[in-house]
Amino acid sequence: MFNRHAKEIYTTAISKCLPTSAVQSALKEFCLPKGKLVAVAIGKAAWQMASTASEILGDSIDRGIVITKYGHSKGAIHGFEIMEAGHPVPDSNSLLATKKALEITDGLCKDDAVLFLVSGGGSALFESIDCSLEELQGLTKSLLASGASINQVNAVRKHLSNVKGGRFAQHVSPASVFVIALSDVLGNDPDAIASGPACADPTTVEQVNGILSEYGITPSPEVYKLLQRETPKTVTNSRHVISGSVSELCRFARESAQALGYNAQIVTDLLSCQARTAGQILASVAKTHKDTSEPMAFIFGGETVVHLCGNGMGGRNQELALSAATEIEGMSNACVFAIGSDGTDGPTDAAGGFADGKTASELRKLGIDPVAMLDNNDSYNALKAVNGLIFTGPTGTNVNDLYVVLIRPKEV
Amino acid sequence: MFNRHAKEIYTTAISKCLPTSAVQSALKEFCLPKGKLVAVAIGKAAWQMASTASEILGDSIDRGIVITKYGHSKGAIHGFEIMEAGHPVPDSNSLLATKKALEITDGLCKDDAVLFLVSGGGSALFESIDCSLEELQGLTKSLLASGASINQVNAVRKHLSNVKGGRFAQHVSPASVFVIALSDVLGNDPDAIASGPACADPTTVEQVNGILSEYGITPSPEVYKLLQRETPKTVTNSRHVISGSVSELCRFARESAQALGYNAQIVTDLLSCQARTAGQILASVAKTHKDTSEPMAFIFGGETVVHLCGNGMGGRNQELALSAATEIEGMSNACVFAIGSDGTDGPTDAAGGFADGKTASELRKLGIDPVAMLDNNDSYNALKAVNGLIFTGPTGTNVNDLYVVLIRPKEV
Repeated sequence: MFNRHAKEIYTTAISKCLPTSAVQSALKEFCLPKGKLVAVAIGKAAWQMASTASEILGDSIDRGIVITKYGHSKGAIHGFEIMEAGHPVPDSNSLLATKKALEITDGLCKDDAVLFLVSGGGSALFESIDCSLEELQGLTKSLLASGASINQVNAVRKHLSNVKGGRFAQHVSPASVFVIALSDVLGNDPDAIASGPACADPTTVEQVNGILSEYGITPSPEVYKLLQRETPKTVTNSRHVISGSVSELCRFARESAQALGYNAQIVTDLLSCQARTAGQILASVAKTHKDTSEPMAFIFGGETVVHLCGNGMGGRNQELALSAATEIEGMSNACVFAIGSDGTDGPTDAAGGFADGKTASELRKLGIDPVAMLDNNDSYNALKAVNGLIFTGPTGTNVNDLYVVLIRPKEV
Repeated sequence: MFNRHAKEIYTTAISKCLPTSAVQSALKEFCLPKGKLVAVAIGKAAWQMASTASEILGDSIDRGIVITKYGHSKGAIHGFEIMEAGHPVPDSNSLLATKKALEITDGLCKDDAVLFLVSGGGSALFESIDCSLEELQGLTKSLLASGASINQVNAVRKHLSNVKGGRFAQHVSPASVFVIALSDVLGNDPDAIASGPACADPTTVEQVNGILSEYGITPSPEVYKLLQRETPKTVTNSRHVISGSVSELCRFARESAQALGYNAQIVTDLLSCQARTAGQILASVAKTHKDTSEPMAFIFGGETVVHLCGNGMGGRNQELALSAATEIEGMSNACVFAIGSDGTDGPTDAAGGFADGKTASELRKLGIDPVAMLDNNDSYNALKAVNGLIFTGPTGTNVNDLYVVLIRPKEV
């Protein structure tokens, strides 16, 4: 029964976080402008988001452009130009496509609007710079190698870019920007999603110069000069609707669990610890409530990290499930599952893993030591041996991961 | 208001987990035997537990003994002999006191009963061996140095002991044993509390020999022979009531939070990750529910560990609170607090720490970097500077730690 309930919960939750659902739901809050409407869709889900917007808004969209990753376009969309480019490293097609996006959003007036559809990967795909790609890449590499944090790297990159850190909103001003974002960033901070093209940037030139001197980075005089342009500190012409996110993934999972009769509670949608630790914590939740008198579901969302020590095969969600399996061994009334909403978990064909009280003992019966498999980061082969892998195929969305503990009253 | 609510919640929860309350509540389930009643109280809370039992049962107790840590006796108790001994390392007084306990429980018959009051520290204080103390200590040290797990060390020690691993229950048989345990062990497993003197031992001589050979430990022929005696695999004359434990601490904290108007939920009472990670997780819970429409409380229990990198002063609960402080900075409607139920946290005079959205920014205003303080394990001095320490003094109980997140609707 746990297997069936788990599948019901993650299938429902992910289906409601598909780009199509996200755009449908967010467009309810959108009012057509008096003037022109231009659509710009960026990111790995750009094609689906644009396609849904086109279906709903039809000829109300005067012009549109899709900028997505190579292989992610699924054909023509009425009114849209489709362009594919490099991800995760921006390439010349990123610059070319972004140039077109800037062109079709140039010279707009107050009554015009830009519908800006943003999804994960947008940061690499949507880029305009006044230096060379090589200089951008060189600067990024030096920063990362120096030990600067990802927030520091992004502060520098925003100052170099003509579209990040609020500059895209500045570009389309005085027209308004309605942003529909499918968030792949924990916390759904608009200035972090795709580096916030339509969002005021809290970082300053002073901070950027401080970062450069702290890590001893000396950019070329040309690049240094570009970095001295301050990003917008207020952006008044944009409105953000975070439509798909791990928060919604959790909310829909909760609703689905409730429909199955569970007393369901979201604990956190910002879990970012090590996968193995997360598995132990979810298992501890199951053990704490082992004597429950009602079915309970504890919902977690986030994106954990794997501490690689071994040379096995797996992904963060499979590792979390296997870790939980070793801790709930013998429990007859609980399960833990973990799944990536994009349907892929690490370099495997699985989306995640499922564990109950029998998982670890079944492995032992097969002569497989679950703890040794975990130590070798070989969660894929461990779970595969006991039918603990979850397969969905690519789902078309990317709103981080879902982790669930289900506990039922013990059978008497 | 959060400060007041936090204090109300931890004060209430701890007071209901004091040895006195635990014994009062558990004795409701105890029926006086037809024959003799002998009481044996072991552990750091033995004096309080015995004192309460004596008050309630009076002259129904024919004879009793208290075996507690040096300095933990608070005077005479009617009908009880009071003995103090070594903790955490057993000494000759541990052996002497245990010998007396075995004497007064010797030769009991079927209608007699032993009231066995067990608290943390009982494992060192209650010991009887047929080898020397030096041999016991030598064996323990070799095992620990070899890399054996604490469970493996305990399996060996149980086999060497005349009272651990169910052998005390065997000794008093055919009399019955009514165990009231104040648990300091996460999961409240009776065979782990004070090494389970009245509990069947799941470990075997075969496993013990396997552990010795795995880690290349060669005990003296005398000790080896003692280890070949099998511990009881079934114990039918004992009944355990876990009366005080971190599970109850959490339950009482939940009730107290509910009385203050919070929708309160216990997440886990088995949290054992790093304190800093636990702080991040509790903070993530606060951030996840930042837009709540009702007051919410998330209750956690357990005992975290501190990864020492610096040379500052602090304890696991203070470190957890400071870690949370850095993550909830700026939130106006949440707090996190962590407290050790024994009232002492690490080598400090504080019991734990309290953090809200202002904690980290107030530190920065004082020129103190909260993350640097955390990196230096200096949570005591950081929290002290902003009135974030919790002081209770020694509480008299020891049922692990309580961690709470409180979140209220934002003020409009």
